[in-house]
Amino acid sequence: AMDGAPPSASPTGLSAYVAVSQLLGLTLLATTGAWLGRYRGGVAWHSPLQFNTHPLCMVLGMVFLQGDALLVYRVFRHEAKRSTKALHALLHGLALIIALVGIIAVFESHRSKGIPDMYSLHSWCGMAAFVLYLLQWLLGCGFFLFPGASFSLRGRYKPQHIFFGIALFILSITSCLLGITEMLLFKISDSYSHFVPEGILANTLGVLLVAFGLVVSYVLTREEWKRPPLAEEMALSMDFKTLTEGESPGGGS
Amino acid sequence: AMDGAPPSASPTGLSAYVAVSQLLGLTLLATTGAWLGRYRGGVAWHSPLQFNTHPLCMVLGMVFLQGDALLVYRVFRHEAKRSTKALHALLHGLALIIALVGIIAVFESHRSKGIPDMYSLHSWCGMAAFVLYLLQWLLGCGFFLFPGASFSLRGRYKPQHIFFGIALFILSITSCLLGITEMLLFKISDSYSHFVPEGILANTLGVLLVAFGLVVSYVLTREEWKRPPLAEEMALSMDFKTLTEGESPGGGS
Repeated sequence: AMDGAPPSASPTGLSAYVAVSQLLGLTLLATTGAWLGRYRGGVAWHSPLQFNTHPLCMVLGMVFLQGDALLVYRVFRHEAKRSTKALHALLHGLALIIALVGIIAVFESHRSKGIPDMYSLHSWCGMAAFVLYLLQWLLGCGFFLFPGASFSLRGRYKPQHIFFGIALFILSITSCLLGITEMLLFKISDSYSHFVPEGILANTLGVLLVAFGLVVSYVLTREEWKRPPLAEEMALSMDFKTLTEGESPGGGS
Repeated sequence: AMDGAPPSASPTGLSAYVAVSQLLGLTLLATTGAWLGRYRGGVAWHSPLQFNTHPLCMVLGMVFLQGDALLVYRVFRHEAKRSTKALHALLHGLALIIALVGIIAVFESHRSKGIPDMYSLHSWCGMAAFVLYLLQWLLGCGFFLFPGASFSLRGRYKPQHIFFGIALFILSITSCLLGITEMLLFKISDSYSHFVPEGILANTLGVLLVAFGLVVSYVLTREEWKRPPLAEEMALSMDFKTLTEGESPGGGS
């Protein structure tokens, strides 16, 4: 590189984009909190405010933590792969637990108010995102974290894991936007069209969610920013590959 | 390849996925038509039904045609690049015109009914998608269709064009889902939660839109399915590259 940076440093552009993503992530959490706190009476469990736990948990789990879990291979690009992988699985696991709390909140809130479940497009997309995200996490652990899977099997599954990981992240954000629209039309349908502050704030939250998704996806898909394999991984994986391919010549389907 | 297919044939998997995408595309157009025709009184201009032109045009232009325009480099992978590029630009141009008609429809419909414009998250996302799509089209024409831009400038812009092309396609689909949710909560807010047929049909349209986006994005991002350069393009671009780089040594920023 022209600036004489050592090859082990992160590319400059990458650090800037990651910083922007974290700033956006914290801003969207703060905006969610401001909306719920200032206009919706705050967040609580076992109370008429239980519903408000739902948007807070979904934005924190399915967007912020899911997004950050996707970024770990870019951010910790020179750490050992084993540690980075554990962090990736851990953050997704945490995201899933927080999302589950958010889902329980909306089901309990519906039951206490006599509102039917799972009739809206938001609920269909959101539930699909959650169930497929859980499945993706289980498959990820099965293929990459526990020893069983062969090197060639991992190699074949990896591109699918990456594609569906980004797709589920985007579907999660889309589900949040649908939820914002639903909530505004339920709560302020009369004043929304008059550009009241709550409407503007919630729309802005939607724009921040799109921006977060855009920046994270850009970081993830940029070819030059992909995690380079460490020197020792190259040697190791070559040994494994030889061993594995030796075990099952031809490879099958 | 094991099956002895000539190297000029499309990969088998690619053809199947493209076929599925077209089936989904036609199904989602039919579903939009069924919703508007069966439950919303049909589509017309200069009438109280003018609003219904909006969803029809947006699904046709911003989703179906935009998606198909993105696929042309995969489908016509062995045609001359110049023709494929012209088709890509033409389909996007057609999509933009149809989307513009759809946008005029909703603004005129709002004016005739005294409804304010541009207050909802749907309108913010949808308008952003349309304006950025138009900008992307203009930039694409400027960089790739007209002669001016140098080979190295085109090479630097191309990854950005591809990333934002897919991002805008996804944002367009998200805007459609927001529009479906808005329309259902405006028109059938009392019966939506009772799983009435119109609600199920419109939710299904939302699921079809997500499925179309997923299949098209999968085809676009799969590494092995990218368009291989033709032999004559390789030679030609090498000549151009030499010429261009000869003109401006060093390349600049």
